[in-house]
Amino acid sequence: MDCIFCEIIKGNSQASKIFEDDDLIVILDLFPVIKGHTLIIPKKHSEFIKDVEKDLSAKIFLTGIRTAEAIRKSEIRPDGINFHLSDGRAAGQEIPHVHLHIIPRFRGDGLGFRFNNKSLANREELNRLAENIKNNLP
Amino acid sequence: MDCIFCEIIKGNSQASKIFEDDDLIVILDLFPVIKGHTLIIPKKHSEFIKDVEKDLSAKIFLTGIRTAEAIRKSEIRPDGINFHLSDGRAAGQEIPHVHLHIIPRFRGDGLGFRFNNKSLANREELNRLAENIKNNLP
Repeated sequence: MDCIFCEIIKGNSQASKIFEDDDLIVILDLFPVIKGHTLIIPKKHSEFIKDVEKDLSAKIFLTGIRTAEAIRKSEIRPDGINFHLSDGRAAGQEIPHVHLHIIPRFRGDGLGFRFNNKSLANREELNRLAENIKNNLP
Repeated sequence: MDCIFCEIIKGNSQASKIFEDDDLIVILDLFPVIKGHTLIIPKKHSEFIKDVEKDLSAKIFLTGIRTAEAIRKSEIRPDGINFHLSDGRAAGQEIPHVHLHIIPRFRGDGLGFRFNNKSLANREELNRLAENIKNNLP
């Protein structure tokens, strides 16, 4: 199965590039949720972020921060920015090749993470769960 | 105005900690959108990610990746993970102190970024916009 991001990286598919170096490309999403929706994509194919080499993971995020600043100064002039990464299909990952979304936001745009079903957690249960996760740190 | 994250970092407010070092803390969100909803928080107060020192920004993301792996191996056993950062109030940032959300995801959980209003962009317009953003890269 051909990976569309790998095809773009190889130059076999079109993309609107903002930045490129030996490690990654920064392109505009062809199906933007809003004008200026941008993707930071490592050139080496990995489905999951845990399989990306540490320095490259750091570079993906730092390039995202730089790109967010460029978007802020560009004609888009957003009121805010979301950084979003979906790791795994159940998390909303549509293309199985790591990519970080940089999404310009405007007051009242109706976008964003669905944070609506928040509820106050029980402290004792939270402490127990924190311990359980801590014990599984690599 | 007191910052709740600064109060937690100073030890004046309770939190369920997964990890802590000189630079950052990893805690469970007290108002989780789902069980295991975790926050990576730099200790030094900054409202925006651009104001966080580069090495620390990289560390925030790398700690997020490590924590996501711990969540995967913990009792939570999610099907996927979202990494989400809201930079600015219009982007959904509720506490004006940088924090990266690590959110366990399950098939059909109804969470995630609202990616529903996607539409195919015009290539010529995308190329023009990419150039405009590129010219604003720091």
